[in-house]
Amino acid sequence: MNKTKDELTHFNGQNRAKMVDVSDKKITNRIAIATGTISMKPETLKRIKEDKIKKGDVLAVAQVAGIMATKKTSELIPMCHLIPLTGADITFKDNQKDKITVTVTVKTKHVTGVEIEALLGCQITLLTIYDMCKAIDRGMLISNVHLVEKDGGKSGHFVYDK
Amino acid sequence: MNKTKDELTHFNGQNRAKMVDVSDKKITNRIAIATGTISMKPETLKRIKEDKIKKGDVLAVAQVAGIMATKKTSELIPMCHLIPLTGADITFKDNQKDKITVTVTVKTKHVTGVEIEALLGCQITLLTIYDMCKAIDRGMLISNVHLVEKDGGKSGHFVYDK
Amino acid sequence: MNKTKDELTHFNGQNRAKMVDVSDKKITNRIAIATGTISMKPETLKRIKEDKIKKGDVLAVAQVAGIMATKKTSELIPMCHLIPLTGADITFKDNQKDKITVTVTVKTKHVTGVEIEALLGCQITLLTIYDMCKAIDRGMLISNVHLVEKDGGKSGHFVYDK
Amino acid sequence: MNKTKDELTHFNGQNRAKMVDVSDKKITNRIAIATGTISMKPETLKRIKEDKIKKGDVLAVAQVAGIMATKKTSELIPMCHLIPLTGADITFKDNQKDKITVTVTVKTKHVTGVEIEALLGCQITLLTIYDMCKAIDRGMLISNVHLVEKDGGKSGHFVYDK
Amino acid sequence: MNKTKDELTHFNGQNRAKMVDVSDKKITNRIAIATGTISMKPETLKRIKEDKIKKGDVLAVAQVAGIMATKKTSELIPMCHLIPLTGADITFKDNQKDKITVTVTVKTKHVTGVEIEALLGCQITLLTIYDMCKAIDRGMLISNVHLVEKDGGKSGHFVYDK
Amino acid sequence: MNKTKDELTHFNGQNRAKMVDVSDKKITNRIAIATGTISMKPETLKRIKEDKIKKGDVLAVAQVAGIMATKKTSELIPMCHLIPLTGADITFKDNQKDKITVTVTVKTKHVTGVEIEALLGCQITLLTIYDMCKAIDRGMLISNVHLVEKDGGKSGHFVYDK
Repeated sequence: MNKTKDELTHFNGQNRAKMVDVSDKKITNRIAIATGTISMKPETLKRIKEDKIKKGDVLAVAQVAGIMATKKTSELIPMCHLIPLTGADITFKDNQKDKITVTVTVKTKHVTGVEIEALLGCQITLLTIYDMCKAIDRGMLISNVHLVEKDGGKSGHFVYDK
Repeated sequence: MNKTKDELTHFNGQNRAKMVDVSDKKITNRIAIATGTISMKPETLKRIKEDKIKKGDVLAVAQVAGIMATKKTSELIPMCHLIPLTGADITFKDNQKDKITVTVTVKTKHVTGVEIEALLGCQITLLTIYDMCKAIDRGMLISNVHLVEKDGGKSGHFVYDK
Repeated sequence: MNKTKDELTHFNGQNRAKMVDVSDKKITNRIAIATGTISMKPETLKRIKEDKIKKGDVLAVAQVAGIMATKKTSELIPMCHLIPLTGADITFKDNQKDKITVTVTVKTKHVTGVEIEALLGCQITLLTIYDMCKAIDRGMLISNVHLVEKDGGKSGHFVYDK
Repeated sequence: MNKTKDELTHFNGQNRAKMVDVSDKKITNRIAIATGTISMKPETLKRIKEDKIKKGDVLAVAQVAGIMATKKTSELIPMCHLIPLTGADITFKDNQKDKITVTVTVKTKHVTGVEIEALLGCQITLLTIYDMCKAIDRGMLISNVHLVEKDGGKSGHFVYDK
Repeated sequence: MNKTKDELTHFNGQNRAKMVDVSDKKITNRIAIATGTISMKPETLKRIKEDKIKKGDVLAVAQVAGIMATKKTSELIPMCHLIPLTGADITFKDNQKDKITVTVTVKTKHVTGVEIEALLGCQITLLTIYDMCKAIDRGMLISNVHLVEKDGGKSGHFVYDK
Repeated sequence: MNKTKDELTHFNGQNRAKMVDVSDKKITNRIAIATGTISMKPETLKRIKEDKIKKGDVLAVAQVAGIMATKKTSELIPMCHLIPLTGADITFKDNQKDKITVTVTVKTKHVTGVEIEALLGCQITLLTIYDMCKAIDRGMLISNVHLVEKDGGKSGHFVYDK
């Protein structure tokens, strides 16, 4: 690998962080997908799924939180540009035992990508699940949070490879 | 295990989420410690550490982001109470190869605990590292995010057990 | 009625608005309850109730929005003090035809009351219902938003009288 | 009326809320006008108007609050897109007896409409009037909040009909 | 002068910034007063004062902005604690020629002081005056922003000395 | 000078503040540069520079704060439009004795200018320096805050003249 210094683009001539100049980048349709998992006691997953049936819905709250978080990315991540998102969607899958996996898809038509938005939406969705259930399971674990796929920018199509 | 229904405390009589009433809980000193890890290419860790020496400091930015995030918890996590924190501190450790581990300690003197604040500070610190380095390493992975320890509330001393 | 000038307490000696000094007010348990109604086409209410059964739940989103809004009151209403709330709860009732009524209960243990928090939670819950359904019913009407009851402060027990 | 299921556009395949994908909608000039009324004791309206003459101006504060609120819409209403507004204006009219009516006009040049922004600006303007006067009149009533007119989008020109 | 290292209290053992632990500080009534000046063309000051008489009031907007800003301090200044303020008040004085001086008084009953809140309120009030008038006077200058006085904390009574 | 009334553009027909309609302004590349200075005891500047060498970096924190603040301009300054910035950069210069000067450069490709964003970034960077050092020097003074240069809009190239 042969990466040159200026590729850590977030630094200026005084070696301090800056918000990179994207004035001349092209407006294109961009998409990013991120995922992450929360592990819990089997009892906790059971409770989440039962309560859902009864309509006291942990996942509904978590997902509203996740979508709202995608819109707050530039407030939380210092060098992120404000990007008006054109769409955000979150889905859940559980392993029927002790894990819930969250997948967040974010879109924009803008000059820079939305991978941080997707990852943040994922983190906040997972943490809200933790918050809603912590009274019965304080030892839940968040893991495997990563970008799944990204497309539409100059850097091309990225697919996570593991 | 024998958990009763009302322990998922975040739901009301219509089985909808609410912000739990803590009016009558006691004000005590409370502390929570959370941790999490980001894995990267060895080249990326090398770059972070070199740049730090040169003062273009990825971790300085990440840690300011993490501390600021602890103060935004109640804006992001729907059922969290606003808690005026009395302190927040973040430390970093790397494995000299391809991982950085973040530990966040949060304190308050208030009626309810700060584990979500510590976990959020941890998530945002990790995501800021991702953001600062994504131009050279889009495949970084965030994992092992969990509460380490918590003390000072009615539920007693919690230590993560794995 | 014989109200004296200084009762419009939000003004200073230059006749400009200020945030009133509450340094010496007593910390007490305080509660405020507010209500409001949204009117819609019968078809719209039917859709909201059906979708709820299928779990695509308009009201779940509206109520998360309402609770989060109660925590943002001092950011939106210029002369409001920041009040750490100790609880917030929202319930819904429909008239089986064309109206949904929202009731918001907010609590704190603090030096000043939370009626604005309750009213704001109510307004945002109603507006979120509007937003979720506006594609099928742009003519919905929000009305009858008022404080229902308030207790715990120096001004005593207030009950809305109509 | 014959509305099909997908018109409640804010739901995804899991019947959960999402932020609708507007990536391919056209950028056009859009405008929305909303209105609402606050009813009060005659004495309260008199005080507001007198104080205005003396320059301790309730309406000046309310209107700054309303304009600032239009810019916070996407933070408060979960499924709203962030829309950079191109203009916002608020006017007041009173019935010379016991009511103030607020009208909010919001504009953008963007892919989606601004009716929620106009309605929110209206709600917050009204609530700020309540807040500024609540020390002398806790029983004020907010009503008749609705969209007046909207133009510029695919759904055409909407005029409130009652 | 003989200041020891730990007096730059905002750093931790890794020499990184932290939010200082104030868990054991005493709750006391605290006050801080800050001031600052904006210089402009004589024509600009004349316009501000005339418009005020006509009620299109630059200073009314600036002062609402300043008060709202005092409440946002902990969101903007990274190592500041969130402090629920008990009062905020802003006054204006002009030199009848080409300067407006702003004075901001902020109060709390809390464990730590509010000098940053007062200074921020002052800065934002001044910048709002700039914003409201920039179409006619882009060369305005903000200067002489400093703490005037502070009282109520462990460090005693401070009075600015120049 | 012969400025006409409507040049104080931030007022509507009721002589109240509004957010000016910029719907029909052209999208162009825009840049604004602002500067400001903080004066301190020589000892304080010495400490900031030494600590920087040791990596407990006051300026790193201040500069992250400044960049994040540029993104919050429309939340703080009532009549400012939300502008998605395309870049922000901050540099520091000291006089080797008792002053630090901050320069902030902000860019956008939008319909309206970013001078307020640059000035706000400057103010918050300076105030964060104050906050980080106030334990050893409460009498620091912020001065000489002004726009240095601005280009790209209809009003042409502005250069500060003093």
